[in-house]
Amino acid sequence: VVDGALAVDRPGVEVVLVGPVDLAQRLLAARGAAGRFEVVPASSAVGMDEDPVRAVRARPDTTVSVCARLVRDGAVDAMVSIGATGATLAAAVLTLGRLPGVARPPLAVVVPALAGPLVLLDSGATVAATPALLGQYALAGSAYATVVLGIDAPRVGLLTNGEEPGKGDPLRRDAAGVLAGLPVRFVGSVEGRDVPCGGVADVVVTDGFTGNVLLKGLEGAARMLGEVLAARLGRDAPHLLPVVADATAHLQPEVLGGGMLLGVRGVVVVGHGASGPQAVARCVVEAAQAAEQSLVPRLADALDALQAPA
Amino acid sequence: VVDGALAVDRPGVEVVLVGPVDLAQRLLAARGAAGRFEVVPASSAVGMDEDPVRAVRARPDTTVSVCARLVRDGAVDAMVSIGATGATLAAAVLTLGRLPGVARPPLAVVVPALAGPLVLLDSGATVAATPALLGQYALAGSAYATVVLGIDAPRVGLLTNGEEPGKGDPLRRDAAGVLAGLPVRFVGSVEGRDVPCGGVADVVVTDGFTGNVLLKGLEGAARMLGEVLAARLGRDAPHLLPVVADATAHLQPEVLGGGMLLGVRGVVVVGHGASGPQAVARCVVEAAQAAEQSLVPRLADALDALQAPA
Repeated sequence: VVDGALAVDRPGVEVVLVGPVDLAQRLLAARGAAGRFEVVPASSAVGMDEDPVRAVRARPDTTVSVCARLVRDGAVDAMVSIGATGATLAAAVLTLGRLPGVARPPLAVVVPALAGPLVLLDSGATVAATPALLGQYALAGSAYATVVLGIDAPRVGLLTNGEEPGKGDPLRRDAAGVLAGLPVRFVGSVEGRDVPCGGVADVVVTDGFTGNVLLKGLEGAARMLGEVLAARLGRDAPHLLPVVADATAHLQPEVLGGGMLLGVRGVVVVGHGASGPQAVARCVVEAAQAAEQSLVPRLADALDALQAPA
Repeated sequence: VVDGALAVDRPGVEVVLVGPVDLAQRLLAARGAAGRFEVVPASSAVGMDEDPVRAVRARPDTTVSVCARLVRDGAVDAMVSIGATGATLAAAVLTLGRLPGVARPPLAVVVPALAGPLVLLDSGATVAATPALLGQYALAGSAYATVVLGIDAPRVGLLTNGEEPGKGDPLRRDAAGVLAGLPVRFVGSVEGRDVPCGGVADVVVTDGFTGNVLLKGLEGAARMLGEVLAARLGRDAPHLLPVVADATAHLQPEVLGGGMLLGVRGVVVVGHGASGPQAVARCVVEAAQAAEQSLVPRLADALDALQAPA
């Protein structure tokens, strides 16, 4: 995280570190960057093996809660958390509150698909979904695509295991009915390949379990193909290795960045748990851009407009 | 399908076409291959919009049922069906019957992962799973990996959205307990990236909905990266385009082939609905190899051994 903060290269972005002050100072000093960032103390982190909601409620001094209070109080414009999805979600909801109509804020990731960028959500905030929740994701994702991708009436697709009517599990079959009744441009079912290939939908709606598995699968496919190609091209055309690395990075955290938590009253980005410094820096820039673009009020307006009776 | 049959290039494999005889003869004649294959008549197909079980029960002359009877009666050694997963599953179960301990036969796909091939199942036979069913997939997948990959004690992983204990939806959390109690080498949770990257598990167990979405996602990622790289390399190094095409084919139907329906009393391969001729031919070769390797009796023996009390 400290290396990531140091890797942020964008004018006007000021990073505040939140965590154990001694450790942060030591890591900064070791990098010749003593005093570069303000460090706000937070003495406790939510462990991966804890119940996140319980931990966040029980200990007000966890990093995620301290971050969320800085956002709530206007001391910072956005927060970034790396990997601790459940804890970040809990702290954001409890401290910042939710926008109307979003019972469980989904994580939205902008995927640079072949045919153009699209929004995939939920990428892992809530593993168990309901048809009503998938409907909320459709509304929030549609509003987000309008704000970040500048698409007026984004096409919304429901991720299933086949495009024919009748395909999908019971959740998808019921959700299709819900989505068809919403004031979004519902284009029906889309399949796994439509997420990296694009061209069918601007917003792809799914539960957080499937979204997370798919996104990590795409990341792995890019890594696999990158290594296979590097091994083969390395002999004949080593000068092309950067081209391969650049192309495969599109589906990896360094370019994908983090997920935007949609529907909380503040800009909250959750980075990939395996983020390296470049991926952390990408999350910071993503958060800064969202704050600059007034994401939260614009999302609130867009959600209002979508939810208002026609 | 006819082009796929003509593309089969493997000594000793004899293809029998099943379907409307007039159409098959016309297509063969148009390709200068009149009389090349025996054509067994089947006057009806199961439509994508039909309930597959009902259609298969109601009409004994559908292509999938005729195929399954040829397998059952020993007239052919294996069957291949392209895309009609539900109908093929129904015909296979109703006509061939199941092996003990497999309530719902899963589709198993061999993924040529970076660290070595692995078995992913269920890739789409049954969308809704239970912990007990995922346990059956673990047993069947473990037995299949032993037969097709020659691995003595395959590592079995459960696909979830995070490797930490407590991650996963309720189905995964309950299934982890079931898998831990089975006589397989359960290695715990694996993530989406572990399927293309490999190295963590030889068998990856998931429900048919998630497996299908993930597999199609990998296919799409390969297509996306293939096109991005082709566009960039096409200018500077057009001679390397075949290298890119070859590498990306690994995650596409032409190399992946079809899914093997595990736990029915016959060799049944289900190909990707979007299969081209090369993918169809790959499915035929896969089916022929399984028959040559005595897959069904060996799988039955391996399942027996796994299910026998220690």
